[in-house]
Amino acid sequence: MDYPAQARAALDQIAASKPLVHQITNIVVANDSANLTLGFGALPVMAYAPQEVAEMAAIAQALVLNIGTLSEEEVEAMLIAGSAAGERGIPIILDPVGAGATSFRTESALRLLNELPITVLRGNRGEIGALVGSGEVRGVEATGSEDPRAVAEAAHQAFGVTVAVTGATDVIVGKDATYLVHNGTPLLGMITGSGCMATATIGIFNAVGSDPALQTALGLASYEVAAERAAVGDPGPGTFRAHLLDEVAALQQGGEVPVRITTG
Amino acid sequence: MDYPAQARAALDQIAASKPLVHQITNIVVANDSANLTLGFGALPVMAYAPQEVAEMAAIAQALVLNIGTLSEEEVEAMLIAGSAAGERGIPIILDPVGAGATSFRTESALRLLNELPITVLRGNRGEIGALVGSGEVRGVEATGSEDPRAVAEAAHQAFGVTVAVTGATDVIVGKDATYLVHNGTPLLGMITGSGCMATATIGIFNAVGSDPALQTALGLASYEVAAERAAVGDPGPGTFRAHLLDEVAALQQGGEVPVRITTG
Amino acid sequence: MDYPAQARAALDQIAASKPLVHQITNIVVANDSANLTLGFGALPVMAYAPQEVAEMAAIAQALVLNIGTLSEEEVEAMLIAGSAAGERGIPIILDPVGAGATSFRTESALRLLNELPITVLRGNRGEIGALVGSGEVRGVEATGSEDPRAVAEAAHQAFGVTVAVTGATDVIVGKDATYLVHNGTPLLGMITGSGCMATATIGIFNAVGSDPALQTALGLASYEVAAERAAVGDPGPGTFRAHLLDEVAALQQGGEVPVRITTG
Repeated sequence: MDYPAQARAALDQIAASKPLVHQITNIVVANDSANLTLGFGALPVMAYAPQEVAEMAAIAQALVLNIGTLSEEEVEAMLIAGSAAGERGIPIILDPVGAGATSFRTESALRLLNELPITVLRGNRGEIGALVGSGEVRGVEATGSEDPRAVAEAAHQAFGVTVAVTGATDVIVGKDATYLVHNGTPLLGMITGSGCMATATIGIFNAVGSDPALQTALGLASYEVAAERAAVGDPGPGTFRAHLLDEVAALQQGGEVPVRITTG
Repeated sequence: MDYPAQARAALDQIAASKPLVHQITNIVVANDSANLTLGFGALPVMAYAPQEVAEMAAIAQALVLNIGTLSEEEVEAMLIAGSAAGERGIPIILDPVGAGATSFRTESALRLLNELPITVLRGNRGEIGALVGSGEVRGVEATGSEDPRAVAEAAHQAFGVTVAVTGATDVIVGKDATYLVHNGTPLLGMITGSGCMATATIGIFNAVGSDPALQTALGLASYEVAAERAAVGDPGPGTFRAHLLDEVAALQQGGEVPVRITTG
Repeated sequence: MDYPAQARAALDQIAASKPLVHQITNIVVANDSANLTLGFGALPVMAYAPQEVAEMAAIAQALVLNIGTLSEEEVEAMLIAGSAAGERGIPIILDPVGAGATSFRTESALRLLNELPITVLRGNRGEIGALVGSGEVRGVEATGSEDPRAVAEAAHQAFGVTVAVTGATDVIVGKDATYLVHNGTPLLGMITGSGCMATATIGIFNAVGSDPALQTALGLASYEVAAERAAVGDPGPGTFRAHLLDEVAALQQGGEVPVRITTG
């Protein structure tokens, strides 16, 4: 497969169709995530109220659920939005931020996985591991020695959804294929919400394609190409964060997208 | 009228009097909006709890209400704060973010318009159109073909408040005059919250003047002068966003403010 | 005492041990505060739900409570988290943002001080003054003419905790010593959340040392050294904000930390 050409095509499709991506996300990353979505040429909308999330999800092309600063009411809103999204068949992406750190997070993530037709589950190896009983996290960071691939495969088995475990190499396990994404930069680990933005990216790419694992791989790789470019000159994290958004937006302007994806 | 001189005078008055601007705004833009307020030399305060908003509004010089991530409780807090602001006669600015996208948003905006002595209503043509029954929005973006001026006039008729419909040209319809603001840059559309920051700016300028339509025009034009300067060199959105704040703050240091305002 | 060497040692210890800092903070500064924490090499986790805060605080090395956008439920969560932190003896830092502006803020701050084993209380002279009956604030800014040292000493007497009153010179009053920190730049006053980030820094430094007043002085001074470096060239506030994060992260890479601390 010519993944760079496919990434280019997906990016062009996003900019042309401007998918609306409904995000129920945490207060830490909401601004970054909205800006990232605009950077890709898509339209973000953040809506949380139980009174409106079904209506909002029903006009969206993808739904992103992120439990980074969850509350009981927010979980209820996610269930309502997810149900509306499921009825319309739009992709639902779940980011179980901090699963494993508290039982409320682990249980809420499992509840969303059980009650909603999740399309893609993305987390670090600690978070995804926690959902299948093997991970270690400190707050929202993975700490244990789980093998990312084993974790992704176990979660795919357990939940029957496409699973993306991101890290130095990202592992995406889908129904028909496993992809490895080799792009990225350690600077992503220096800014908060880089994982959450990866999840938003997965939502954006799945809004314009029907193969969840492939769209996830193309999205993660494209985002990480932008990150690699933003990391040139080894800036500090404050400058890197601004440049990351610049480089995501620059992807809209055409040109090659040197994604490095392999199947495994 | 010498609008550049009036803009200069308003900016100087803001920096000299440091008005306190109480903002009940969304979680996406709260940080940007606070930084913008400081950039103009005013003082932001974000306060949401029903237990305190009346007290906070009572010491403020303007109140900004933004429904970007509204909840039922937040609407109640807005009603309490708005009532306190109304009793003291300070300007209240309403941003009906995403009105038209969900009925909860449309109805909440209408309820605030009906129950509070709103001074200025600001939105894009889709949002304001939705409030008068004509607009189209996708999430929080205008999509239909409404004529901004017709929309602003209809809303002014319907609600009896000053209405600002922002876009490539901003239209401000007040009791005695209609202003057109010709400043701006397409880069504002590339960052989240640029409309919300425009609304905060309107609050800041109305804190130091008694003619809502004129203050709104001067505020929007000044903000967009800063945006034009931040857009020099055509930076990416991440860099533009940082420069926008730099240029807003630079307005405090004196010099000409080449606002382009006409009456219509 | 060789404070620069002690600051260096504390910074190295933070980067080596990566303390987890649980923060219940306001929606304005949550992103900045998380990025700052990562910049120092520590791990931030923002968690607010009453269902999980005890569990999260129990795995953290410090707890930071910030009432900048408090709600009744958030105060309850702070009490639960603080109780768990107290049982484990980890430091608890309180930032009474806007105390004095509304009675809800003043009373909530006093309640947290009374019911929890707070380690360090940090605010501006208006906020801390309000807690001992003398301060003046407008929104979240100090306005009166309180003497910072008198305010810090009064609060230390009243509450029996280490008190940091930050300003042009920071005054830290502890059980056995009083420190003055002379680092800093007026640019910190141009960005929102610079005080909240100072409080987060105090949490990070107290996670790796047992003398609250000394750790607070070292933390504030180190943060302000980064701010001084970010202020070189007198950038606008948008650029300064990005550079501040760059310079905090650069502190991890070794080198001298020219803190200017005196005892008083």
